[in-house]
Amino acid sequence: MSNFEVISYRPEPDEYAWVFGRSVPPVRRVRPGSVVEIYTEDCFGGLVRSSADLPSVVCQFPYLNPVSGPFYVEGAEPGDTLALHFAAIEPARDWAVSSTFPHFGALTATHQTAMLHPSLEERVWVYDVDRVGGTVTYHASRGDAVIEMPLDPMHGTVGVAPAGLEALQTITPGAHGGNMDSPELRVGTTAYFAVNHPGALFGVGDGHCRQGQGELCGTAVEAAMNTTVVVDVIKGASTATPWPRLETDDAIMSTGSTRPLEDAYRISQHDLVTWVASSTGLDLLDSYQLVSQAGEAPLANVCDPNYTFVAKLAKKYLSGSDLYGGVHARLRQTAAAYLAER
Amino acid sequence: MSNFEVISYRPEPDEYAWVFGRSVPPVRRVRPGSVVEIYTEDCFGGLVRSSADLPSVVCQFPYLNPVSGPFYVEGAEPGDTLALHFAAIEPARDWAVSSTFPHFGALTATHQTAMLHPSLEERVWVYDVDRVGGTVTYHASRGDAVIEMPLDPMHGTVGVAPAGLEALQTITPGAHGGNMDSPELRVGTTAYFAVNHPGALFGVGDGHCRQGQGELCGTAVEAAMNTTVVVDVIKGASTATPWPRLETDDAIMSTGSTRPLEDAYRISQHDLVTWVASSTGLDLLDSYQLVSQAGEAPLANVCDPNYTFVAKLAKKYLSGSDLYGGVHARLRQTAAAYLAER
Amino acid sequence: MSNFEVISYRPEPDEYAWVFGRSVPPVRRVRPGSVVEIYTEDCFGGLVRSSADLPSVVCQFPYLNPVSGPFYVEGAEPGDTLALHFAAIEPARDWAVSSTFPHFGALTATHQTAMLHPSLEERVWVYDVDRVGGTVTYHASRGDAVIEMPLDPMHGTVGVAPAGLEALQTITPGAHGGNMDSPELRVGTTAYFAVNHPGALFGVGDGHCRQGQGELCGTAVEAAMNTTVVVDVIKGASTATPWPRLETDDAIMSTGSTRPLEDAYRISQHDLVTWVASSTGLDLLDSYQLVSQAGEAPLANVCDPNYTFVAKLAKKYLSGSDLYGGVHARLRQTAAAYLAER
Amino acid sequence: MSNFEVISYRPEPDEYAWVFGRSVPPVRRVRPGSVVEIYTEDCFGGLVRSSADLPSVVCQFPYLNPVSGPFYVEGAEPGDTLALHFAAIEPARDWAVSSTFPHFGALTATHQTAMLHPSLEERVWVYDVDRVGGTVTYHASRGDAVIEMPLDPMHGTVGVAPAGLEALQTITPGAHGGNMDSPELRVGTTAYFAVNHPGALFGVGDGHCRQGQGELCGTAVEAAMNTTVVVDVIKGASTATPWPRLETDDAIMSTGSTRPLEDAYRISQHDLVTWVASSTGLDLLDSYQLVSQAGEAPLANVCDPNYTFVAKLAKKYLSGSDLYGGVHARLRQTAAAYLAER
Repeated sequence: MSNFEVISYRPEPDEYAWVFGRSVPPVRRVRPGSVVEIYTEDCFGGLVRSSADLPSVVCQFPYLNPVSGPFYVEGAEPGDTLALHFAAIEPARDWAVSSTFPHFGALTATHQTAMLHPSLEERVWVYDVDRVGGTVTYHASRGDAVIEMPLDPMHGTVGVAPAGLEALQTITPGAHGGNMDSPELRVGTTAYFAVNHPGALFGVGDGHCRQGQGELCGTAVEAAMNTTVVVDVIKGASTATPWPRLETDDAIMSTGSTRPLEDAYRISQHDLVTWVASSTGLDLLDSYQLVSQAGEAPLANVCDPNYTFVAKLAKKYLSGSDLYGGVHARLRQTAAAYLAER
Repeated sequence: MSNFEVISYRPEPDEYAWVFGRSVPPVRRVRPGSVVEIYTEDCFGGLVRSSADLPSVVCQFPYLNPVSGPFYVEGAEPGDTLALHFAAIEPARDWAVSSTFPHFGALTATHQTAMLHPSLEERVWVYDVDRVGGTVTYHASRGDAVIEMPLDPMHGTVGVAPAGLEALQTITPGAHGGNMDSPELRVGTTAYFAVNHPGALFGVGDGHCRQGQGELCGTAVEAAMNTTVVVDVIKGASTATPWPRLETDDAIMSTGSTRPLEDAYRISQHDLVTWVASSTGLDLLDSYQLVSQAGEAPLANVCDPNYTFVAKLAKKYLSGSDLYGGVHARLRQTAAAYLAER
Repeated sequence: MSNFEVISYRPEPDEYAWVFGRSVPPVRRVRPGSVVEIYTEDCFGGLVRSSADLPSVVCQFPYLNPVSGPFYVEGAEPGDTLALHFAAIEPARDWAVSSTFPHFGALTATHQTAMLHPSLEERVWVYDVDRVGGTVTYHASRGDAVIEMPLDPMHGTVGVAPAGLEALQTITPGAHGGNMDSPELRVGTTAYFAVNHPGALFGVGDGHCRQGQGELCGTAVEAAMNTTVVVDVIKGASTATPWPRLETDDAIMSTGSTRPLEDAYRISQHDLVTWVASSTGLDLLDSYQLVSQAGEAPLANVCDPNYTFVAKLAKKYLSGSDLYGGVHARLRQTAAAYLAER
Repeated sequence: MSNFEVISYRPEPDEYAWVFGRSVPPVRRVRPGSVVEIYTEDCFGGLVRSSADLPSVVCQFPYLNPVSGPFYVEGAEPGDTLALHFAAIEPARDWAVSSTFPHFGALTATHQTAMLHPSLEERVWVYDVDRVGGTVTYHASRGDAVIEMPLDPMHGTVGVAPAGLEALQTITPGAHGGNMDSPELRVGTTAYFAVNHPGALFGVGDGHCRQGQGELCGTAVEAAMNTTVVVDVIKGASTATPWPRLETDDAIMSTGSTRPLEDAYRISQHDLVTWVASSTGLDLLDSYQLVSQAGEAPLANVCDPNYTFVAKLAKKYLSGSDLYGGVHARLRQTAAAYLAER
């Protein structure tokens, strides 16, 4: 018998959140240690279902990238760190979609990288999703090429209410998380966020069956998801988390979201270097040296309002260090117990 | 006798706005054609008054860069363009301040351009303001150098509620205006903004006695201001204003705010090229060529959350063109009539 | 009777330089204090003469942007600073040209800002040049618009052999100068360059009848020029010039050339701040503050292999400072004497 | 008995190349199909051997990053593609070094990202290299932390003479290759370069025992190497290679080198998308979609004069495509035959 609370949440059609912000009313209250089952709609609100459903026609700004939430976490206070362990991320349908979108993506003129070119053609690709076989299948829009790729589900958007009085579009990543679009945010990962407001007010959305590094064309293999998150709160200022961080069994990761891309790289690597120094006791330049030789830089997105980089270091280089008091291992156990019972 | 309404507004200490957003309650309702007299506090909320008042000590995030407003403009609807003509911008005190600020400015590591350096020293400079003589006086913090510069008052922050559901910090510039920090926003200028929400919800703040191009160290000669704005609304979708624009007797200007700086340049020049093409009837590439040879690029800021560039073209190259139906000339007349009476 | 040597140089067709580098054989040797009259061809080598002469067809890489030189300056040694005073820049013909060019310019996909768009249309504009009236005349390529603009001649390309063993295309700006494309490099200006190799090996090219700030479309009003330069050398390491600098009767300027554009801004402003501190004795942060409020940032180019920014400060703020020992005033006198005799 | 020629080359101390350029005299001539054994010195020229050897003291600009070469490849003509298969990259010593360097690296002010901070402390780390055990060992400079990492040898610098008349420092990466600093350039990889000049004039240097993604602090685990390359030439314009490309048994990769980092990303992904389209017959937008979902973006460097990104796609998604006529498999066989005999 489980010693954790389980909460299930599937938003009503008009219940999705479109911004992260302190004034968005919470949809549920959850206790630290709880397991939360969340249904998330895809970034198009489920409105793009065939190659005839052009996103710029069927979707309407600002109703893009719906987020399920926010969830109010009992006892989470400014100065604390919220931990979200992703126990399951399961595609809700046997299809998923991707598309080009006018003036959006990395290899096209955009509203920010403004140019005199007309936009690229808007086109939709529909993927088959085989949840048992663990694949997604690409069909070329011209010709008959069919290509199978591994299913590797992740969430593009996870975050909390940002600091201060702002309310930010769910499509924008930042220090509060948001639309980071990192393939590293998959099952088995614990994500950490600074708590800026009582209750933290986290939300989850934008599931991807898989995504290339950079989200080149602006969209991934977009899908509704049934996702299970184990929630916890790490109390106290000593665990400050200036930017969202990730932890798996094997690695720790920092994120950075801004433009230009080298600044997103700098933020993420700077956070990793200072995190490693503080958790291992290494001198700051020694940590800089260690991360320089052993670190990885899995790219997240180069298409959103801010670009996102991830900085990553294998835990095998961090023996004896204290990482948030071992919360990842505890949440992983809860996840295992829950999944065994389910 | 004047045929315009005059509204005077001085915020109570707890009445300033710290975000631009649709859900900020308006402080006043004004009619198109009205003259609005607004008191604005400096970017430090008036709390930095001597070299002992370090901004990072006396100011508290997010209570930075107070804005007077928002003002609800009767009849302004999405699709319209708001016109604000600056009839007067007058320093409210005989002193003003500037400072360095930890991890803020163009020649320092920042939270976005993250580096391992400790921050530069935080220091405050107090300027004398001679409103009659039209000068500000700089005093070196080390040694006894004293340098007089022309008074050239401007507003760093002017904007409307942003599109969609966002609420953005007043320190962030964007398509809604905000903290553009352009020295071109001085007396005699009409500023245009797309109306995103009923009433437009404009606000004004962050007066500068003067500012160099780029706002290099992160702050200008910061001052409270008594400012007079003539307000108007241009109806209809044909006057779309994708980014804030400025008009003087001699020139038209477009703005762009984003990072990296070349993209802010691209946005502003792209908007100017398309504006010139549409208002003159020139072919798009002919407009591109004209702006390439006759255009200017007065830099605004390279320190705020987004960088801002201005693209400028002298009106002498635009004979016969229709610029918002001549609203600038009409507002200028209202301003002259008001100032003559005052 | 003049006390200066006058050297006249018009390259043979096969004599132009296409790179700046230590191994390019000098075309002439000149003594400090000399007046040098130089004919420079336009950036297209004079091959674009009508709207039918598409640059990508008539010009052939790497034979773009011909430079007259290099000139070997007697006595110039590494550690010295070369001073070039521009006494005259006179269009050599009564026409000039501009164009779009495939994948070149600020509002188009380029080889570096690579995108999937086809290139913008390549088009040529031929300008009338009225050297007596002081105007250039634009003719729209579509329709019949005709617009007169002031003649404001400048050189896009001026530089010396770069440090080390490199040879750089003349189209690339950098710490050695090169294709900075700044409208500030006009008559009356003294340009300073660090001497990297014996003789300095300076060259001049890419005359523009005028240019907008940023050189938006990638080309200015391109023209062959008859240019007169007064040459001098400032001996000794105390006059180090890390980046090209400019001086006029009224202002000093530093340049910076790199990408992204904010880094070009940073280089130029950093050099100006340190130059002001060292020449006035101001504390470094006091200089930072002064430049922040009194400085200008006239943009040069946002289209070349490196982008170029200029940082500018009026001399009225620099009373009592030592600027290269007053060499500008002396060269200006030589220029005046020469022009009076000519 | 082998049917290939083997050439061994170890430079004399004064024989290294410091630029890539058409006018650097070749050190050897090699035939397509040959195996070339090359000794390469480390990026410090072997002068940094202990923590007391500060690079900025013992190394002298421009004598940084020595390259072994150039090698003249018989029959290589402009329009051809040079293929270099890395058969072996073996550390030449049982130690290697890394360091910070003043104003160089991603988390420090640099000459381009110019700031008012003093430089970070210059420090050297000496690594043990265990060629049998396949490890390198890090020793913290403060405290006694010792960390073992896998040996993963690679070359930071591989390239050919750049197009046109330029000679570029070996430290600069670009379309000619050069100092790309990608960990993907390891044993088993074939690198492709456009031939710009007769003989191609390739060179190799800057061996790393291993390197993190981004080369964060500016240097890797720097080592002299004994490296074996199999050389080939692919004739004809149909195999154009606009940017350096890599191929392994499992993946193809494109590179891009410029600033800002998003443009390096754009170049590399654009080249990969067009390469995939042309080699598979996929429509361009179908290729864009495929790379968006299946592509990787292993970061190379964010510290050199240009930043470098790699775009990567697994070959399993490219069945039936023609990749340089299968040259990788042939060179791999030659490598295997040579290594078996050696």
